[in-house]
Amino acid sequence: MNGAESLIRTALGCGIDVCFANPGTTEMPLVAALDAVDGMRAVLALFEGVCTGAADGFGRMADRPAMTLTHLGPGFANGIANLPNARRARTPMVHVIGDHATWHLAADAPLTADIESLARPVSGWVKKCATPAGCAADMASAYANAMRWPGRAATLIVPSDCQWSEAPGSVEPPMIAPPPSSLGGSVKESAEILRKHGARATLFLGGRALRERGLRAAARIAAAAGCRLMCETFPARMERGGAMPNVEKLAYFPEQGIEALSKSDAFVIAGAPEPVSFFGYPGVPSKLIPVGRETAFLATPEQDSPGALEELAEMLKAAPAVLRQATERPAIPTGALNAATVGAVIAALMPAGAIMMDEAATTGLPFFAASAAAPPHTYLALTGGAIGQGLPCATGAAVACPDRRVIAFQADGSAMYTVQSLWTQAREGLNVTTLLCNNRRYRILQVELARAGVTEPGRKAKALTSLANPNLDWVGMANSMGVPGVRVETAEALADQLKRALAAPGPNLIEMLV
Amino acid sequence: MNGAESLIRTALGCGIDVCFANPGTTEMPLVAALDAVDGMRAVLALFEGVCTGAADGFGRMADRPAMTLTHLGPGFANGIANLPNARRARTPMVHVIGDHATWHLAADAPLTADIESLARPVSGWVKKCATPAGCAADMASAYANAMRWPGRAATLIVPSDCQWSEAPGSVEPPMIAPPPSSLGGSVKESAEILRKHGARATLFLGGRALRERGLRAAARIAAAAGCRLMCETFPARMERGGAMPNVEKLAYFPEQGIEALSKSDAFVIAGAPEPVSFFGYPGVPSKLIPVGRETAFLATPEQDSPGALEELAEMLKAAPAVLRQATERPAIPTGALNAATVGAVIAALMPAGAIMMDEAATTGLPFFAASAAAPPHTYLALTGGAIGQGLPCATGAAVACPDRRVIAFQADGSAMYTVQSLWTQAREGLNVTTLLCNNRRYRILQVELARAGVTEPGRKAKALTSLANPNLDWVGMANSMGVPGVRVETAEALADQLKRALAAPGPNLIEMLV
Repeated sequence: MNGAESLIRTALGCGIDVCFANPGTTEMPLVAALDAVDGMRAVLALFEGVCTGAADGFGRMADRPAMTLTHLGPGFANGIANLPNARRARTPMVHVIGDHATWHLAADAPLTADIESLARPVSGWVKKCATPAGCAADMASAYANAMRWPGRAATLIVPSDCQWSEAPGSVEPPMIAPPPSSLGGSVKESAEILRKHGARATLFLGGRALRERGLRAAARIAAAAGCRLMCETFPARMERGGAMPNVEKLAYFPEQGIEALSKSDAFVIAGAPEPVSFFGYPGVPSKLIPVGRETAFLATPEQDSPGALEELAEMLKAAPAVLRQATERPAIPTGALNAATVGAVIAALMPAGAIMMDEAATTGLPFFAASAAAPPHTYLALTGGAIGQGLPCATGAAVACPDRRVIAFQADGSAMYTVQSLWTQAREGLNVTTLLCNNRRYRILQVELARAGVTEPGRKAKALTSLANPNLDWVGMANSMGVPGVRVETAEALADQLKRALAAPGPNLIEMLV
Repeated sequence: MNGAESLIRTALGCGIDVCFANPGTTEMPLVAALDAVDGMRAVLALFEGVCTGAADGFGRMADRPAMTLTHLGPGFANGIANLPNARRARTPMVHVIGDHATWHLAADAPLTADIESLARPVSGWVKKCATPAGCAADMASAYANAMRWPGRAATLIVPSDCQWSEAPGSVEPPMIAPPPSSLGGSVKESAEILRKHGARATLFLGGRALRERGLRAAARIAAAAGCRLMCETFPARMERGGAMPNVEKLAYFPEQGIEALSKSDAFVIAGAPEPVSFFGYPGVPSKLIPVGRETAFLATPEQDSPGALEELAEMLKAAPAVLRQATERPAIPTGALNAATVGAVIAALMPAGAIMMDEAATTGLPFFAASAAAPPHTYLALTGGAIGQGLPCATGAAVACPDRRVIAFQADGSAMYTVQSLWTQAREGLNVTTLLCNNRRYRILQVELARAGVTEPGRKAKALTSLANPNLDWVGMANSMGVPGVRVETAEALADQLKRALAAPGPNLIEMLV
């Protein structure tokens, strides 16, 4: 057995059974090893940003890592942009990057790069294999580090001679530690705040607190204390609809966020970092909770926030949850497509068990409120703000959950960064319906220009924020990569096409002119 | 005037008059400044790899930097993969990256990243603006560093508060130093080697030695000494055809390179690094010149190789060049499309003054020999081996040289990394004809699999090296981004369509089923 096979066997032993790959020459022994070892699915992407984004979507849904396989520094570099998203989502993932043979590095061949320096800013753990015999143990370490609760990116660089040389064999999967508890005092402090401020307090949720267990406990707490429930702007994964409580999402722009948070006198934060402005603006503070408001950190994102919420519910003697059962969907609207009608149509039609990947940017805003009482579904957001996450993340979520329908609710500008995702969806026959919001502009940037005081943009500012001239033909784009598509211009047409698309096997795309 | 405007005014004063941009919120003051200052062209790309690759193509043709404008760490990261190519091409370029406001970094907002760490491995110079008043001088330094002969990437990180705050104004362009001469002794040593070994010696050329001045001197030297002329496998820019001498290109695979170099007893190297294998293979040395062969380094890539070649010609008392005048093109072949017929058709029809960007990979190999005596043209290659360079580089070359026809000779797999280039070509109306080689596979990886001993690839290895299932429809892809396209399956059809395409204004694409 060579080093490559020992690495793949070890990964499979750890439960890593999907590899999102765009390999090159230095990864050929690993490619051969994928065939030598039964059980790991190899998914080709035609651009590495698809690999990393898909691993993010997979990890969010599966709570275990997929592996990516990329080629040297430049190949991995193409996958970097989606990793700040995965880092903020705290997604477990393992990146395997091939490198030149150890003895060939000194030649400074054209593709030689400092892979470690590129990987470190976007990885929680980085190692380079030093020997063929070490490949297996290094992969086990990568897995253990990726799984350190709640999850992180572990990057393993594997020189090609370590791959092709003889190695002793695989190693056993490592033990994974349980989630770290939050500090005991924080539960007591949180209980005191909620008792004192009641309806004037906000329980602010993020990260793992937005899964079912955390939300059930939060619902009990809210019922007992009368506090408000809010959540971070970009949840990595949030269970919504069905029996889940309605949770208000923090607005994107800081002025609106500050206004919403100012309504509360005190805060208990669980699973989220303290809310901050996405960008810095002149005269606007970075931190959104007004200075001086009483705040308790029940559990950080790296602590067991669901467990802490359950403890807090007990301390408040909260009754068992009486959870909403009825769904309440908006009526299907008619007329022109806009953010409101698009959101209503989706909320009206999304099936139980749907996975909604929301990278719809400005067009997506009304959907969240409209879908609060929809049938149970999972909501995934653009956690790190690096656009181009939606299509790959939806791809990975569909690989993780083949029995659930994935909806990629997607802005046009953002879609172009990783549009190659559509091809992988077609090849793998994934059940992804892409709802492409074609407004032919970087709408958010036009808003930001105005916020920056440019109320009448000049010719170049207009050109740099417009996706027109020429217009992108999204149906043609999807068809060219094997994904069937249709174009709609009214809410009625969207409803008709969405019903059809959600029932059809494999991927499809609806271009919505908004 | 704010910092952003002082920066743009300074850049324009340095002659930087093109900005390949994909900006975001933190770059809005720079976007506004592009409108406030007349004379800098703003070219939008829908993916940052297009910006950096276009800056590479522009810099290779213009010998001065274009500017790129990208958004924070993730935006710049999407542009990284093309920078190893630009680094090996030694292309002058200036990357401007926006960052969060200085006072906002501590908030660790979602898009916060260590931009300097990402930029350093792919930049010859990196600086972060510290104050609004410093923006102008920092841009002047970036320009000076980009222009340090023969050229490099200078990266300037500009916090958004430095952009929007008041600044004193622009600064004067810096002085640019002349190219460093090679050491005097190297000319003498080279002359001795060529006199001693004559036809058994090879003059090995690369970098700036492959421009017209260097090649004219090399032709004189070859005529005087009787030596062989060879050049590096991936020239950044080589003048070819017309009066230029025929220069043998080093083969890609090391065994073939070693065989070709073994025919010479001695070497004089000008403008190129010592030739090394692109990848390390078991049992194959990194260095391709057999051990013990006499070798003189006339000029490194960072030295004035054209000047050194002229000195060497003088020392050899070489006669003024008698340069070939007649062109000799292959006949237009008929029948099936394959690497040989495609190469012959292009060589038969490419117009004088064409710029040929060759990222055709395996399909491209016969073209180089077939076009040796074509009308004068410029040849650009994939210098760093990071695929996805061709379409952006062709885009930038067309911006630099609006009066010349650019041919993007492009492999299908490679094209998918930066396919968004086609949209920019359409928006800007660039005279680029893309000849897309659709063989529906990563052919080079199938060769590399066999080289790695996998003679009968398994199901996964086949899937990971195939671009079929589904087939990419390149005509549909181009059309969806506003570029007209046709598909051809025979050499006759290619010839007909190529004649038409080369005469049509604006971009177009011919999908060649090979």
